[in-house]
Amino acid sequence: MIKTSIQYGDETPIAAFSTTPGNSALTLIRCSGKGSIDLAASILSSDKIKDTPGNTVIHCWVINKELEPQVRRIDEVLVSVFRGPKSYTGEDSIDICCHGGVVTGKAVMAALKKAGFRDALPGEFTFRAFMNGKLDLTQSESVMEIVSAKTEAGRRHSVTRLSGSLQKEIHDLKQLLVQVLASAEIFLDYSEDEISPAMDNADEAAEKLPNKDIALSVLSRLQKLSASWQIERIYQEGITVVIAGKPNAGKSSLFNAILKEDRSIVTEIPGTTRDWIEAWVSIDGIPIRLIDTAGLRESSDSIEKIGVERSYTLIREADIILYLIDGEQGLTGEDNDYIEKNCSHNVNGAIEPRTCEPKARSSQVLNSLVRHLFIWNKCDIAPLPRQFLASSLSPICVSAKTGEGLTELYASISEAIRKQVKADSFDSSEAALGTERQKKLVDSACAALEEALALTERDEPLDLIAPMIREAVNFLGEITGEVSTADILEEMFGRFCVGK
Amino acid sequence: MIKTSIQYGDETPIAAFSTTPGNSALTLIRCSGKGSIDLAASILSSDKIKDTPGNTVIHCWVINKELEPQVRRIDEVLVSVFRGPKSYTGEDSIDICCHGGVVTGKAVMAALKKAGFRDALPGEFTFRAFMNGKLDLTQSESVMEIVSAKTEAGRRHSVTRLSGSLQKEIHDLKQLLVQVLASAEIFLDYSEDEISPAMDNADEAAEKLPNKDIALSVLSRLQKLSASWQIERIYQEGITVVIAGKPNAGKSSLFNAILKEDRSIVTEIPGTTRDWIEAWVSIDGIPIRLIDTAGLRESSDSIEKIGVERSYTLIREADIILYLIDGEQGLTGEDNDYIEKNCSHNVNGAIEPRTCEPKARSSQVLNSLVRHLFIWNKCDIAPLPRQFLASSLSPICVSAKTGEGLTELYASISEAIRKQVKADSFDSSEAALGTERQKKLVDSACAALEEALALTERDEPLDLIAPMIREAVNFLGEITGEVSTADILEEMFGRFCVGK
Repeated sequence: MIKTSIQYGDETPIAAFSTTPGNSALTLIRCSGKGSIDLAASILSSDKIKDTPGNTVIHCWVINKELEPQVRRIDEVLVSVFRGPKSYTGEDSIDICCHGGVVTGKAVMAALKKAGFRDALPGEFTFRAFMNGKLDLTQSESVMEIVSAKTEAGRRHSVTRLSGSLQKEIHDLKQLLVQVLASAEIFLDYSEDEISPAMDNADEAAEKLPNKDIALSVLSRLQKLSASWQIERIYQEGITVVIAGKPNAGKSSLFNAILKEDRSIVTEIPGTTRDWIEAWVSIDGIPIRLIDTAGLRESSDSIEKIGVERSYTLIREADIILYLIDGEQGLTGEDNDYIEKNCSHNVNGAIEPRTCEPKARSSQVLNSLVRHLFIWNKCDIAPLPRQFLASSLSPICVSAKTGEGLTELYASISEAIRKQVKADSFDSSEAALGTERQKKLVDSACAALEEALALTERDEPLDLIAPMIREAVNFLGEITGEVSTADILEEMFGRFCVGK
Repeated sequence: MIKTSIQYGDETPIAAFSTTPGNSALTLIRCSGKGSIDLAASILSSDKIKDTPGNTVIHCWVINKELEPQVRRIDEVLVSVFRGPKSYTGEDSIDICCHGGVVTGKAVMAALKKAGFRDALPGEFTFRAFMNGKLDLTQSESVMEIVSAKTEAGRRHSVTRLSGSLQKEIHDLKQLLVQVLASAEIFLDYSEDEISPAMDNADEAAEKLPNKDIALSVLSRLQKLSASWQIERIYQEGITVVIAGKPNAGKSSLFNAILKEDRSIVTEIPGTTRDWIEAWVSIDGIPIRLIDTAGLRESSDSIEKIGVERSYTLIREADIILYLIDGEQGLTGEDNDYIEKNCSHNVNGAIEPRTCEPKARSSQVLNSLVRHLFIWNKCDIAPLPRQFLASSLSPICVSAKTGEGLTELYASISEAIRKQVKADSFDSSEAALGTERQKKLVDSACAALEEALALTERDEPLDLIAPMIREAVNFLGEITGEVSTADILEEMFGRFCVGK
């Protein structure tokens, strides 16, 4: 058993809240470990759980046996009994479903601790599940991904990993590399002892990596996996979209219009510590942190300066900026100043006011423009003038008031993200990476394999090439946890929430 | 079956979150109703739950059977199956334990709704439990009390009711009254038909209420129950304690010192909408809403006025005021002004500065002083001058800095509350009322019984007395729900949280 410096890795009985105690109907406490069933029995009104088969639910009371019968009852509960290895952790486990409320959960937990359970460390249940072979590391990590999923699409991807898609892909790739390695090492065994000088030429040919085509196909699949992380990361961390534009262009109206359409995952962040408004919305299944910079300018003098600076900080850090043009006023000098400053500082010649066509621009500027989506607001009362149709701004016509053009705006945002990550579609059921840790290991495996193939190209001997392939195999083993160190496990499970 | 105007009362399959979906390891969804097991089976990867006995846990996946196998999985779950009447509601029920996170819970709930479950109304599970005879009304109400319990002592009282203490007491009292009623009604039957004029005298004696002593003892027990509500209410709603005093008397230091000692139930309420600081603490098991009025004065001029007004509003609404005297400065003119204005407006003669003894006061003022606890702060550097020892202020010596005297302060607060509710002790295992509804019905039963006894005293005929006793019996029946109306049930269960 791998020992880590924190207490992970023993089999002592542990307990933790698996749901947050609060103003809900019920609270779930999970317990696991050697002897946990007998230990729990010591605070229950029924001894039944001692002899009951696994996967059984007992209705009883948590009691304090030291007190008189009329005051000993702590709570009426449902106790689910699981007998190892048929449990989440693989150990004997029990789930106690008690009444909700902060005080009740605490009272039951206090009784469990008094009976001999200790507080579970973050991720300790899943750690034990991993140690007992119930989950590999990619599945363990997917458990946390599921809990923190921001959109339905993100959750689907994580569930695919939980069901073993990534584990299987890594396992398959590893098997293929082991095959390449095995054939190379057979050659190595021969070459060291039994090769006569007369065989030199044949030998040199044979020393070329056998099954090189397999290695090449593994590399290609690894590169595809590596590329998948960029999209998965977007699902997990989201994209920051900032609404910018001059005062009264309709920034807050647009913000509210988007929020109103997508009530599903909206969680407004209380504005206590921030002086801008933001909310999470889902566009095309992608979690979007939408920021409204309105109000930042609309204060007294000295504060206004700070407001403008904050707007620019938000814009600098944004993935996508929705720049609103007030359709009624058209493209004003202020708008041009913004575009010049933020989109066209590599171009000689600025965008003219709307009476003129914007001049042709270098591709560099166009790239910068990709991060910017220009929006012609108030299109219900002020249609887009014809000269903008062919301009590099190519504004999206929207009316925050009537909702016109919002569908097109969402499509443009989705397209802009896809362009940035070079993906045709976000939602696929193929194996994909779910964590930075996996990404680093896949990249390391790629690098080792590329090195092996480069050595092969340069006709270097197999005894230099084989170790690189073995290294790649080890990196893949680390992803699923077949090869792992205490450090990695500690780092990984320590980031879990308690009760998981 | 009793029908209510909202949809309570049918047996259709319902589902609700029983824990709040959020950043926790797990989320629990409860389902109940006719056919709920088959309905749930339609979205599970395993058909096992259809044939499994009750109280069994099945490990499987929630799936969308309309999708391809590789994308149909929604979440890996534990499903607990309960077969009526052996369930919380008395119906066939299932608990689905899915992964935590907002998105996963929503996805599983969406699948359940698509399968044919509808959202449960607030309290609908407990309503069904009541309708199916699993709980009486006092127990149903105690379920909500447990969830919202503020302190461990309050929770214990509610659990006592959940285990049936109040139900039993009400049942016993009702049985006794039915006994009184029965013997009275036997007399009534005789008296109408079979009494000859010669028996008039004996008859008159016999027409006196039989078992009057039983009725008297029931009345006394009902009065005791009625009185218990004042204490139970304190456990449920808490006591408001306001810290007042002039600037720099040490109000915030005392507030923090109390919070530091009692970390157990402290929940600071974010100061976003209020400009005073408050927190819940537990003193002697009593939930105390502690309010620090510091800072209300310490602003610029026009705001200061509002601050002082708010302080006075808080003080007017407080159950207990801790008035801090700055020990270093002694009792100042400002302090005397406060005392005169708030504690002694019915007295001729004001409290003199600390060089003089306060004058004797009328009992009315002493009552007003009970609401005020005077605290001599900074006693570590400024001991209480002797002349205060015998004064009506009788200040409690405290050092917020060193913690000296805090224990005495808690004892004084506890005593002040006990004096107000005329209770020797708060914590008893005797039957007590848990809701305003129960209190009203007990008082109505008392009134009816008192009326019956008064009629008896006035030698009124039994046919006037018996209906009053029957009325008292009915009021008691309403408490447990043996006699109930749709209105009452709707009002009661509608205040529950969803999922309960």
